[in-house]
Amino acid sequence: MSDISDIEQLKYRYMRLLDTKQWDEFATCFSDDATADYGGITFSSPRELVDYMRTNLPAEIITMHTVHHPEITVVDGEATGCWYLHDKVFAPAFDFALEGAAFYEDRYVRTPQGWRIAHTGYQRTWELTTSLKDQPSAKLKGAGGPTTHP
Amino acid sequence: MSDISDIEQLKYRYMRLLDTKQWDEFATCFSDDATADYGGITFSSPRELVDYMRTNLPAEIITMHTVHHPEITVVDGEATGCWYLHDKVFAPAFDFALEGAAFYEDRYVRTPQGWRIAHTGYQRTWELTTSLKDQPSAKLKGAGGPTTHP
Amino acid sequence: MSDISDIEQLKYRYMRLLDTKQWDEFATCFSDDATADYGGITFSSPRELVDYMRTNLPAEIITMHTVHHPEITVVDGEATGCWYLHDKVFAPAFDFALEGAAFYEDRYVRTPQGWRIAHTGYQRTWELTTSLKDQPSAKLKGAGGPTTHP
Repeated sequence: MSDISDIEQLKYRYMRLLDTKQWDEFATCFSDDATADYGGITFSSPRELVDYMRTNLPAEIITMHTVHHPEITVVDGEATGCWYLHDKVFAPAFDFALEGAAFYEDRYVRTPQGWRIAHTGYQRTWELTTSLKDQPSAKLKGAGGPTTHP
Repeated sequence: MSDISDIEQLKYRYMRLLDTKQWDEFATCFSDDATADYGGITFSSPRELVDYMRTNLPAEIITMHTVHHPEITVVDGEATGCWYLHDKVFAPAFDFALEGAAFYEDRYVRTPQGWRIAHTGYQRTWELTTSLKDQPSAKLKGAGGPTTHP
Repeated sequence: MSDISDIEQLKYRYMRLLDTKQWDEFATCFSDDATADYGGITFSSPRELVDYMRTNLPAEIITMHTVHHPEITVVDGEATGCWYLHDKVFAPAFDFALEGAAFYEDRYVRTPQGWRIAHTGYQRTWELTTSLKDQPSAKLKGAGGPTTHP
């Protein structure tokens, strides 16, 4: 497996653990001193980042984050990666829906345990928020069955 | 071409043949004893699965199935694959629209004719159904031009 | 890096430069005699194509084009590629929103400067247009902040 393939697998794992809310495993995707900047929401350590996700993405918040078009450059034990994010967030209790896209600019570092995210950050190209109430027929189900959306 | 690349190509072909409704070719993606479980809709043979698709996905039903983030493991002549599905279904005659996501957990087997799907199945992370009537300005066109949506 | 990987990188660059409206760099993705056919909108030269994009996709038009499922075949210095497009377009001044999908059928050529697009074209599988006015709560932000959508 090449470095680029390993880094892609790391990113796919990160996205899967994010959307399935497996926070302890999610934390293992980062180097010890990793930082993040999600469109201006910044984190100076993996602990801070993971705590934020755990608090703000409880079971009732539904997210989908898919990444596309990996453009990865490896130089020795470091790498940079550009990815095209397409994401959706639903907060059924608030009839809230968000859809958007962004370009990730990541940095990765090779550690004795394999490649890890050293920095992840994105800048939005667009973001659309709507209310599920705008679509009276909307029925939303999460992984565990119907949500609270009426 | 590596095994992983071959399996990715198989999956891409499967999705393309599904959304373009080429059922005879779609059938060739499966091993003879393949099974499937699409979020609880189960099939115990490729024939059963293909017949179901042919019946339930006629020309007027529009589908989009894209898969992302392949996490594939090959051990000898067998392989497993996890994919992130994002899908949309439109049934214009009923003003019905569905969007959702799921994680596929597939099994593949190497045959004399190449890699084939031995089992495919997914579990939904979310699913949103709406009525096109909720958006009075909606105009939907399928591959063959405008659909029946008024 | 293999030819297939180089061609994938070319396509990702093309999509990124399209959605970030970097037209001079976008132009470098094509061979000198490249042609295009986007669902019937045809271009007989890269200059014609790039001029069209520059004129019709000014800053206030928001686009997202993601491509998936690369099926690429290389024969000597030429290649063909099939991709699954998922795209969105927003024209906030007109409350206009479009979403659709298509299969790209591209041709690529190896030049002294690397692989270039010799022909790109797609046929839509579906296209849905709506008005943002159908969703009164809709708030759309582009890369530079809030758009004009009220």
